[in-house]
Amino acid sequence: MPRFFLAPEEIHPQFMVLTGENAVHAKVLRLKCGDTLTVCDGNATDYLCTVSDVSPGQISLVVQQTVASDSESSVDVSIYMAYAKADKFDHVVQKATELGAKEIVAFPSSRCVCRPEQKAIAKKLERWQKIAASAAQQSGRGRIPQVLAVDSYLQAITRAAQADLAVNFYENEDHLTFHDAISAHPFQTVALMTGPEGGYTPEEIALSAQHGIQICTLGKRILRCETAPLCALSALMYAAGEF
Amino acid sequence: MPRFFLAPEEIHPQFMVLTGENAVHAKVLRLKCGDTLTVCDGNATDYLCTVSDVSPGQISLVVQQTVASDSESSVDVSIYMAYAKADKFDHVVQKATELGAKEIVAFPSSRCVCRPEQKAIAKKLERWQKIAASAAQQSGRGRIPQVLAVDSYLQAITRAAQADLAVNFYENEDHLTFHDAISAHPFQTVALMTGPEGGYTPEEIALSAQHGIQICTLGKRILRCETAPLCALSALMYAAGEF
Repeated sequence: MPRFFLAPEEIHPQFMVLTGENAVHAKVLRLKCGDTLTVCDGNATDYLCTVSDVSPGQISLVVQQTVASDSESSVDVSIYMAYAKADKFDHVVQKATELGAKEIVAFPSSRCVCRPEQKAIAKKLERWQKIAASAAQQSGRGRIPQVLAVDSYLQAITRAAQADLAVNFYENEDHLTFHDAISAHPFQTVALMTGPEGGYTPEEIALSAQHGIQICTLGKRILRCETAPLCALSALMYAAGEF
Repeated sequence: MPRFFLAPEEIHPQFMVLTGENAVHAKVLRLKCGDTLTVCDGNATDYLCTVSDVSPGQISLVVQQTVASDSESSVDVSIYMAYAKADKFDHVVQKATELGAKEIVAFPSSRCVCRPEQKAIAKKLERWQKIAASAAQQSGRGRIPQVLAVDSYLQAITRAAQADLAVNFYENEDHLTFHDAISAHPFQTVALMTGPEGGYTPEEIALSAQHGIQICTLGKRILRCETAPLCALSALMYAAGEF
């Protein structure tokens, strides 16, 4: 069934209208009176609707049923990814959305090759939020992950450390496995941190450990900076009983 | 330590020589006499070497020690992926190599949008094998995964069914989880199959089940055809105790 995300002000309990890009998309799908579709409020509530009228640029809907989205994960996972070159961050935003992340947090670290200026960050966030919205729609999610940026590595670890399970992955760690970290305690919120192309400095790793973040390995092979967060997220969703 | 893959005929027990692209790469790394590096035979044996001479286009090496590669997975995983559009297959070859797959098998299925001709397949395989070699080198693997193509869906499932654990992922399956399939029996060889952009037909799924392949879900969200195999491979490596 086609899914459309509407802005909060467009959500109404009985009747709704698709306009703008949503109306264009509905036209591409050749939706006609009587067809059914799902409207999502982007906050885990789904509205099962029937098309009641099709006009140019405007599709009228009647709400048949309101249900909690059944495609959201039972755990809230935040992906913390260091700024990376070119389209790597785009890629992770898209894939992490498909894989069920609740939010994606960009942060700078000392070996980041890519360090966008404040103005560029606002533009990037806008772009990433669009990618997340599109991926949420295509993968049938009930929630659009939020993409945000923090100003420093310290802010990232301080924020990440508040999760029930907070892990930073480091290629020079060979003792603590992700499995050990996951199995130690029950958790509802998770923060998964990964470094930039050049890796973390030992000082950065020590700092995150001081803040109570567990330092884990992702195995014996060296993963690229865009592969590591998605590998960790896939494994976490598996461990959390999602599939 | 830098890693270089040499062809079987270039592997010698005491002395070796880097030529061609390897010599170019060595020059980029500014290797000089006395530096150490690893030569891999691509078949899970590593040779720890010292540079004994640097000449234009030729780096001479003395083998110090021969060891089994410690970066290979304890399970042999084959990724079976239906032909997909554009660069999606390239992407999966690169990432599946990082994540430790032993081989990647391309196959046609009825809803494949992309169906390369025999001549195009030979070219694609050559390209994919190069991607795998490069990713193996960068991720520190001891083995270059083999990339191959089979002519039909039936050939793919017949071949996949020979693995100890053979799973086909289907978005309409909501009963058997991957966790159930993994936990049922011990395994050494694994085949993970995923369909094309348009998904499998119900007949294709029924056929693979008849051949003893387990039909599993990858969760409540719909994953893109290039995301599904990497999600499954990450989860499997986690479940196999790799990280």
